[in-house]
Amino acid sequence: MASLPSTPGQTLARLRASAPLVHNITNFVAMDVTANALLAVGASPLMAHAPEELDAIVTISGAVAINIGTLSAPWVESMRLAIAAARAHGKPWVLDPVGAGATRYRTAVSGELASMHPAVIRGNASEILALAGEHSATKGVDSTHSSTEAREVARALARSLGCVVAVTGAIDYVTDGERVIAVANGHPMMTRVTALGCTATSLVAACLAVESDPTIAAAHALAIMGVCGELAARGAAGPGTFRVQFMDALYALDERELDGMARVS
Amino acid sequence: MASLPSTPGQTLARLRASAPLVHNITNFVAMDVTANALLAVGASPLMAHAPEELDAIVTISGAVAINIGTLSAPWVESMRLAIAAARAHGKPWVLDPVGAGATRYRTAVSGELASMHPAVIRGNASEILALAGEHSATKGVDSTHSSTEAREVARALARSLGCVVAVTGAIDYVTDGERVIAVANGHPMMTRVTALGCTATSLVAACLAVESDPTIAAAHALAIMGVCGELAARGAAGPGTFRVQFMDALYALDERELDGMARVS
Amino acid sequence: MASLPSTPGQTLARLRASAPLVHNITNFVAMDVTANALLAVGASPLMAHAPEELDAIVTISGAVAINIGTLSAPWVESMRLAIAAARAHGKPWVLDPVGAGATRYRTAVSGELASMHPAVIRGNASEILALAGEHSATKGVDSTHSSTEAREVARALARSLGCVVAVTGAIDYVTDGERVIAVANGHPMMTRVTALGCTATSLVAACLAVESDPTIAAAHALAIMGVCGELAARGAAGPGTFRVQFMDALYALDERELDGMARVS
Repeated sequence: MASLPSTPGQTLARLRASAPLVHNITNFVAMDVTANALLAVGASPLMAHAPEELDAIVTISGAVAINIGTLSAPWVESMRLAIAAARAHGKPWVLDPVGAGATRYRTAVSGELASMHPAVIRGNASEILALAGEHSATKGVDSTHSSTEAREVARALARSLGCVVAVTGAIDYVTDGERVIAVANGHPMMTRVTALGCTATSLVAACLAVESDPTIAAAHALAIMGVCGELAARGAAGPGTFRVQFMDALYALDERELDGMARVS
Repeated sequence: MASLPSTPGQTLARLRASAPLVHNITNFVAMDVTANALLAVGASPLMAHAPEELDAIVTISGAVAINIGTLSAPWVESMRLAIAAARAHGKPWVLDPVGAGATRYRTAVSGELASMHPAVIRGNASEILALAGEHSATKGVDSTHSSTEAREVARALARSLGCVVAVTGAIDYVTDGERVIAVANGHPMMTRVTALGCTATSLVAACLAVESDPTIAAAHALAIMGVCGELAARGAAGPGTFRVQFMDALYALDERELDGMARVS
Repeated sequence: MASLPSTPGQTLARLRASAPLVHNITNFVAMDVTANALLAVGASPLMAHAPEELDAIVTISGAVAINIGTLSAPWVESMRLAIAAARAHGKPWVLDPVGAGATRYRTAVSGELASMHPAVIRGNASEILALAGEHSATKGVDSTHSSTEAREVARALARSLGCVVAVTGAIDYVTDGERVIAVANGHPMMTRVTALGCTATSLVAACLAVESDPTIAAAHALAIMGVCGELAARGAAGPGTFRVQFMDALYALDERELDGMARVS
């Protein structure tokens, strides 16, 4: 941690102090858990996709999260408009290429959006490999590769796209193409609750609204997720209890406890 | 309470006895929590938006809730059709103008729907101020004003539209343009769970199905919400536990305990 | 159980061992709970509805669940495409005719899809009666008939359509038109959590991916649901706690305990 200019706890403190509005165009499965997680941690979520209002929504937002999980042509068009608005108004945005590699359509849409200058792309190993053009056997929206397998590909992809790439898994790697930060927090139970990866993406957006360095913002968001995952797993009988305790942990997380538990290197 | 013709507990008892079908056109974030809250309290929720069936759905429903949270042009058209059906069949309907004031599109759609004779409009202070044409700084879908600031504007709006207006916040105010009923129940944790405002709107619809006076129906629905919020906050470590206990409270709420805890004046 | 070729516990073990990808076109209310239940029990859920990718999605899936709960014309068209892909690729699919009988539109769409060779149709008594052309007073999406009333109609419908029909209620009946298997597990609290019927349908799909006999797959899925309902009801203060404990039960369910509690005959 010594080499990073700030700590996850400091980013969390700024997030809670400013309660940034985070605009999400996300999938139908993720909407409930994402909105609840953003509220629990102290941000202000907003879900909107109508072309008529996207420019206005982005204008008042601190950052934008774009997630293709239940994509369709009209929603992809809304994503393009929101991204254009984010760029026009200088708002950082994050891409979650859900299921890239699972179908040609997802790979193509992910590739198109990835070229539109996101601040951060967050995906699992299979998705990042697919985005990088690697031949990858994916299984629907779940990864069949470890994050460590995708680390160097992520670094090359970050260089090629000129953005930060975060590949999440047992260990999360965040890279701007040069440095690679590892976040070694989390718990296997996180894979048994739907849309926690999507939630991580929106939390990256929330951190981007208060931390101008996208590498730091992404690493701190993933540290918050991972530490809350560890806290939520304590005494959890299964994914039902885990999800409840995860929301409680996001809400109650002490900033010094976060810094004490975060394994960012 | 002495001046009101019935108590929240009596409305709740009627709701549970008749289990009214409540038709909702609501937003994607709110669907899960709204449906679960209606089931927990004893109503029968139905979500449907296809133009092909809206007239038939409204015909069999006791009341209709219209919520613009994740609006788009096709869904707004469905809302118009459902409202027309509600008026044709004499079914009360409630409007939730989510984010009115945040974008011109939301303000315009809210204004159009508000003019179509809802029984009740329920919104936060920013939304009610925006509907009334007041210049209001809103922050996405969360209010930047207290409900007390909007009380007199709500009364004027109710008179102007000829409907009941409920502005919710630390204290809820329900007004038909003449009398103003205050409901002083609730808990700050309610703002940390997504879509509880939307849920309140649908609970107003459920009460409208069993209580013909819309002022009373709205006040009782908000008292039920607020009292369950207070019960759910007991021992809650955060919004995860709170949401679970809120559903349990809606289910287990004793009608006399409700009347004992309700602060309606 | 002696007459059945395998036990629910054996089907559950195979499901957990292979973690089949289950493709769902389901309703907006059901997405969160369905995805979480499939993950908890050990399957891999995927929600997708874009015509551009349905063939590819079905190709990589073990089974498909089609649920018309919040239907609209474009989504019904996606359902037709997914069903055509399932038939082309030899993947079993399940139909959930939510609200059949409530509106002519739902009855017509349900009838059309039911004729497209599902492996299993799962519905409540009102829905199965409506599909069979019986005049049935339905109340929205909740049944007004007991499953026992619909048992013989279900058997005739199964014969007529050449598929398995599962009618769920206090007792579930699964029939291929000849034999009728009864599953006498479950708990009344299951009717107070939204979309658990929809979740059962998707769990039938998950079992179809690992059990080739659709009667057995459906009966075992319903036994898993019912036993987890019984386990989740222990000590539950209401539907909030119940839902959490239901997810924990799906995750922790011991296969021998399942076989010991299952009342399949």
